[in-house]
Amino acid sequence: MIRSLYYLQGKPIRKDVPPLEFPKLIRDKRGLLWVNFDNEPVESCLPILQGFGFHPLAIDDALQEIHVPKLDDWGNYLYIVLNFMYVRSSGNFWEAEAEELDIFLGPNYIVTLHDSPIPGIEETWSACDRDPRTLQDGADHLLYKIADNIVAGYMPTVEKIDDAIDQLEDEIFDRPTPHTLERLFALKRLLQAMRRILLPQREVMNKLARDDFRVIDPRDRIFFRDIYDHLVRLHDLNESLRDLVGGALDSYLSVVNNRMNEIMKTLTTITVLFMPLTFLTGFFGMNFFEPLGSLKSWTTNPVFYLTLATIFIMPFGMYLWMRRRTWI
Amino acid sequence: MIRSLYYLQGKPIRKDVPPLEFPKLIRDKRGLLWVNFDNEPVESCLPILQGFGFHPLAIDDALQEIHVPKLDDWGNYLYIVLNFMYVRSSGNFWEAEAEELDIFLGPNYIVTLHDSPIPGIEETWSACDRDPRTLQDGADHLLYKIADNIVAGYMPTVEKIDDAIDQLEDEIFDRPTPHTLERLFALKRLLQAMRRILLPQREVMNKLARDDFRVIDPRDRIFFRDIYDHLVRLHDLNESLRDLVGGALDSYLSVVNNRMNEIMKTLTTITVLFMPLTFLTGFFGMNFFEPLGSLKSWTTNPVFYLTLATIFIMPFGMYLWMRRRTWI
Amino acid sequence: MIRSLYYLQGKPIRKDVPPLEFPKLIRDKRGLLWVNFDNEPVESCLPILQGFGFHPLAIDDALQEIHVPKLDDWGNYLYIVLNFMYVRSSGNFWEAEAEELDIFLGPNYIVTLHDSPIPGIEETWSACDRDPRTLQDGADHLLYKIADNIVAGYMPTVEKIDDAIDQLEDEIFDRPTPHTLERLFALKRLLQAMRRILLPQREVMNKLARDDFRVIDPRDRIFFRDIYDHLVRLHDLNESLRDLVGGALDSYLSVVNNRMNEIMKTLTTITVLFMPLTFLTGFFGMNFFEPLGSLKSWTTNPVFYLTLATIFIMPFGMYLWMRRRTWI
Amino acid sequence: MIRSLYYLQGKPIRKDVPPLEFPKLIRDKRGLLWVNFDNEPVESCLPILQGFGFHPLAIDDALQEIHVPKLDDWGNYLYIVLNFMYVRSSGNFWEAEAEELDIFLGPNYIVTLHDSPIPGIEETWSACDRDPRTLQDGADHLLYKIADNIVAGYMPTVEKIDDAIDQLEDEIFDRPTPHTLERLFALKRLLQAMRRILLPQREVMNKLARDDFRVIDPRDRIFFRDIYDHLVRLHDLNESLRDLVGGALDSYLSVVNNRMNEIMKTLTTITVLFMPLTFLTGFFGMNFFEPLGSLKSWTTNPVFYLTLATIFIMPFGMYLWMRRRTWI
Amino acid sequence: MIRSLYYLQGKPIRKDVPPLEFPKLIRDKRGLLWVNFDNEPVESCLPILQGFGFHPLAIDDALQEIHVPKLDDWGNYLYIVLNFMYVRSSGNFWEAEAEELDIFLGPNYIVTLHDSPIPGIEETWSACDRDPRTLQDGADHLLYKIADNIVAGYMPTVEKIDDAIDQLEDEIFDRPTPHTLERLFALKRLLQAMRRILLPQREVMNKLARDDFRVIDPRDRIFFRDIYDHLVRLHDLNESLRDLVGGALDSYLSVVNNRMNEIMKTLTTITVLFMPLTFLTGFFGMNFFEPLGSLKSWTTNPVFYLTLATIFIMPFGMYLWMRRRTWI
Repeated sequence: MIRSLYYLQGKPIRKDVPPLEFPKLIRDKRGLLWVNFDNEPVESCLPILQGFGFHPLAIDDALQEIHVPKLDDWGNYLYIVLNFMYVRSSGNFWEAEAEELDIFLGPNYIVTLHDSPIPGIEETWSACDRDPRTLQDGADHLLYKIADNIVAGYMPTVEKIDDAIDQLEDEIFDRPTPHTLERLFALKRLLQAMRRILLPQREVMNKLARDDFRVIDPRDRIFFRDIYDHLVRLHDLNESLRDLVGGALDSYLSVVNNRMNEIMKTLTTITVLFMPLTFLTGFFGMNFFEPLGSLKSWTTNPVFYLTLATIFIMPFGMYLWMRRRTWI
Repeated sequence: MIRSLYYLQGKPIRKDVPPLEFPKLIRDKRGLLWVNFDNEPVESCLPILQGFGFHPLAIDDALQEIHVPKLDDWGNYLYIVLNFMYVRSSGNFWEAEAEELDIFLGPNYIVTLHDSPIPGIEETWSACDRDPRTLQDGADHLLYKIADNIVAGYMPTVEKIDDAIDQLEDEIFDRPTPHTLERLFALKRLLQAMRRILLPQREVMNKLARDDFRVIDPRDRIFFRDIYDHLVRLHDLNESLRDLVGGALDSYLSVVNNRMNEIMKTLTTITVLFMPLTFLTGFFGMNFFEPLGSLKSWTTNPVFYLTLATIFIMPFGMYLWMRRRTWI
Repeated sequence: MIRSLYYLQGKPIRKDVPPLEFPKLIRDKRGLLWVNFDNEPVESCLPILQGFGFHPLAIDDALQEIHVPKLDDWGNYLYIVLNFMYVRSSGNFWEAEAEELDIFLGPNYIVTLHDSPIPGIEETWSACDRDPRTLQDGADHLLYKIADNIVAGYMPTVEKIDDAIDQLEDEIFDRPTPHTLERLFALKRLLQAMRRILLPQREVMNKLARDDFRVIDPRDRIFFRDIYDHLVRLHDLNESLRDLVGGALDSYLSVVNNRMNEIMKTLTTITVLFMPLTFLTGFFGMNFFEPLGSLKSWTTNPVFYLTLATIFIMPFGMYLWMRRRTWI
Repeated sequence: MIRSLYYLQGKPIRKDVPPLEFPKLIRDKRGLLWVNFDNEPVESCLPILQGFGFHPLAIDDALQEIHVPKLDDWGNYLYIVLNFMYVRSSGNFWEAEAEELDIFLGPNYIVTLHDSPIPGIEETWSACDRDPRTLQDGADHLLYKIADNIVAGYMPTVEKIDDAIDQLEDEIFDRPTPHTLERLFALKRLLQAMRRILLPQREVMNKLARDDFRVIDPRDRIFFRDIYDHLVRLHDLNESLRDLVGGALDSYLSVVNNRMNEIMKTLTTITVLFMPLTFLTGFFGMNFFEPLGSLKSWTTNPVFYLTLATIFIMPFGMYLWMRRRTWI
Repeated sequence: MIRSLYYLQGKPIRKDVPPLEFPKLIRDKRGLLWVNFDNEPVESCLPILQGFGFHPLAIDDALQEIHVPKLDDWGNYLYIVLNFMYVRSSGNFWEAEAEELDIFLGPNYIVTLHDSPIPGIEETWSACDRDPRTLQDGADHLLYKIADNIVAGYMPTVEKIDDAIDQLEDEIFDRPTPHTLERLFALKRLLQAMRRILLPQREVMNKLARDDFRVIDPRDRIFFRDIYDHLVRLHDLNESLRDLVGGALDSYLSVVNNRMNEIMKTLTTITVLFMPLTFLTGFFGMNFFEPLGSLKSWTTNPVFYLTLATIFIMPFGMYLWMRRRTWI
């Protein structure tokens, strides 16, 4: 789907301008044109992008999926790649998916390409629709709005992950299952993926805030600095969450290991308590003590009561001995 | 709560100046105004901050929670974010909470915003109250006093953590419980959080000590250098404490593993000692040796005494064998 | 095997020019000569390379196997080492092998040396063969084509590894074997080897895209920048795959550990259930209760039915007790 | 204790000059004054240090314990913090303690403060006492002597640690105890502490060797470079020792794990050998084979000898089977 | 042992020049003097080195063992420390030992000091002996030859380690012993030591190839660049080998863990199979079923055959149950 917006001060916004008019419109330095390609096949994008006069290598990059945020300065325009991270929760699992947003930023136009709908783009588009003043500060300010909306979109994800960690921490101390561990691993992977998306985007914003580009008004750099700070903060939150997941993994392992130890202790306790008793019963089960044999006196009543006493007292003695060795 | 202090050399300190007078007061370059917002709603902060002429992005940052210490130079004023770390001990656990302090530093005024009471702010405020000379060295010196008090506030926390580690180390060798491990993990997390708060604050102080800002007197840089050194030292202490916690974790695991090994050894020893004896008693319990049968001679007295001797001597032999294999 | 191509605008391509003509041909600045040595013995390479006037140290490097991508600027020519990674799958295992490609790039010639056939070289050669226009942009553009084809050749490998990880992840949760672990280790090693090959190649492309070399047209630098971006992307994919392998290893260990725990629990459960019962049967097997003895009353029917009841009820009680301790 | 030395070429050394004379003495640029405060209370240090005209912040730092080596350039004098590491061995354990040495270096004086006796200081003091020529090269050379003696004092510690590791390595393969592990952890902590003391000191020496200070003769920088090299070497030795301790820890764990495995194998072997035999004896102990019963023929002599044979042959068969599975 | 070579173009090489002539010879700028001290006591080295006019600190460094490769520029001469690594294999173990080579490089002389024979020195010496042309390119070229021979000497070591890893990998899957682990640890330590020797040497060569020294002809820098590349390659090989050792360690642990799991499974299987059977035999061994008692009907033939059937069928059922839980 190709959508376009054309704004010229004092005039109403034109929508869905025919692509053939683009080259003519961008020659008027006072206007502002935004063209958005949403999941559009390569064949229809290519001629339009060529009409803007972009370098073939930049067009190639825009039409392929690259997934690494970057910024190329082509003099008259910038080619920028940003990413948006979707978090899909299938059942109890989390999976991150990075969606690429390609942006061409010229002095009086902005061209955006993406394959799946990106909330940040939709919000900016409808804001422009509702209020043309969003467009009056020029193309670089529009880029700021888009980037700001995209970065703002990470916050709910961070909060969802935070909640998930809290829930898993409770689960660990309550009744840990192998399933808990699976989900911790999934969260860890998710946060790693998020970090790899955030870091290069931070670099792109840093460049926009520091370097001197022909199509960025130096007075607008402060806005990209602001997004940069947001990304620094997100990166910081990501680090904290990774620490939390790491701590939860440690706790899980210690809880499971603990249960294992308790089970081993029980096994040993049972064996220690019953093996001597079983030997004792075996002893008096031998055929030496047959009623007709000569050792008949070994199986008389006093011996039996002594044996019975041993059977009852021995476990207590062993229990005390194990207690002193701090096993139970 | 909004509080304010106005100092003009030779005159008594004015307190709680009406906010409407702020713009007028800061026009007099000889005075010094300190405005403090303590847990004040956004609606009442906003017009006052706008009255100072701060940039909308800086005001935005100040009114939102950011939690990452930073320093933005806006020419006529600096926007600084510092953090203070509370340590809350709920039961035996420790939890760190970072409190944000936003500061606007102008040539002759300082504006501070925070949501919870920060001891460093309170101390500086009452010091100014008691002794107006604290205010006579200008706004940048007042910033130094505030930062110095905040940084000094970390020391008791560090000492509390140090004591907690000592106590846990004793516990580990005395009678380690899963609870000990939990608390070690909590301390580890606390120190990680502390480190993430200290590092960017150190950077802020480094900038104040090195860079050339319009609102900082170059002769006062040496004071920020001093706070920087304190933060370096705190970071160093933090590293040492993290090493100690890491060592305590290692010790815990080795102690627990050791007990486990001892338990397994006992299980094996008991099994090794009693299994052959149990077999022996079973052997002579077979019905081959019935008094009426033909193998009656197997259950005569000499055999019995031999068996008895075996039962007593065998464990000693096995004990010696196990000892030689250095099991017990 | 020595192959050569000579292109002079307006004339048909000459193939397999005799080596003795090389020095003469490269004196004509308008032509373009490509000489390719494929698994050629040192003795036949040496005189030809000396005929180009290369420095002895550069020739030494080209004739030895070095395996570390690098770029040396010798003024009139560049000496470049690139690598290509083969992945050989013997049975279910993967093994990486790096193949070295040495390149001398002059203003109007390119000399390539390698020991095994490299697909990227073959593709570029046949493209030049089919369409002489590939050659008309000069030697540096030809270098770009070769490097582009080599880098493109990594993509199928990356996809194969991706599939292998997916398959192993399924295997882990289905029926993990030690074999699964072996293959995960092999994949990990493969990705480590790939990373060590990609990183220095990225640096070579970065130098070609940034530095000022006499034999590279500054307008062509943008093409090497493009390959650099591809290598950045490959490195990024490699990082992701390494995270996935790391996660799969963690999952494997947790699955195996889990099974182990289940087995230990069963061992303990069986021991706990049967040891007391075995003791009980042993108790009544003692010769105190011989029919002719005085304790005959202990083996009457009521006691037997009580014992039988104990034998049936006891396991249920223990089962409930173990359940309450969340063992089973 | 306050000690002082005053050297003026051609005159005998004056000792224990009254503190009130210090300001007068340092006005004579030809002399050299060394004042040493050894565990002196703050009240008596403060006025003397103020008499030298040091900045209040520097005096504050000198009178507090900081423990992080650093160098502050105050123009007319340098404020330097060095550390000395004591290793205290209580029983078999090692504990590191860092002692702080504060130094003020002026053009013709040096002031040193410390709380515990530092061998490096004592040696330099007595060298000055014995041979006034030590003092004739100026204050910066005296600083070099002190620093050199302090750094030389680390070597015996390094050697003691080296010996301790050797001894522990023997112990690990001979008869490892949990105590061995404790001592390895203690050594690890000690080396970590040492590293944290060495690194910033190296930086201080690097600054003295490279930067341009008013009170350091550029020709003397080479001496600080020499100490820097010594510290590089100590850091290198520290790294090697940490590798050795890491290797010893790995060995310990593998040795202990190995013993554990051997014990588990024995447990399993015993269980595997005796369980079937015990079952067999139980089988013929059942009351089905009572002499008066109908199955009397099962307990005749031939069956007994067969059973006896089974009891003797079975363990051999199982032993061979376990051997083939490479368990024992 | 002190050896010396003196070369003056057009004249035969003079050998073992008396040390007293050295100062005179090096005044003639056209000659080239090489003095080599091999395990010579300090007393005899000192006066000769002082005769060359070296700085006392440099002489101190040369006569002490330092073991950290470095390069000091003293203007008229360079002081260089290189290392050579011996690998000693005592039995199946490997141990690395670093041998230090101190070099003074002047415009027309080179002085080398070492304690054990270094193959690289011996080879260069005999090459000079055989062919005086080795000496005609000046002292810096001679340094290149020595360094080249030393670096070339690492290659056989690397190959020996590679073979050892291959052999250990086979051993791991065949029949791993604790001894295998010991050797893997030894290899790991060896590679760590090698890495610590290679890295600073690489830095020394980098400095020789890049920096501007009075005694190095700028045209000869390319040769040191070549050695630098060799060291880069060795470092790369070292990294690969460390990956391999790391992988082998992982494999060892997984193989051993696997065997342990198999043993535990067998223990559990045996216990699960025989415990119920032993209980059953115990049940019918109780004296309730005495031939003279009232429960005589429980030990009749049909019950016996039923018991016998249970004894034979039960293990099969349990086997199937364990199989379904994927234990065996």
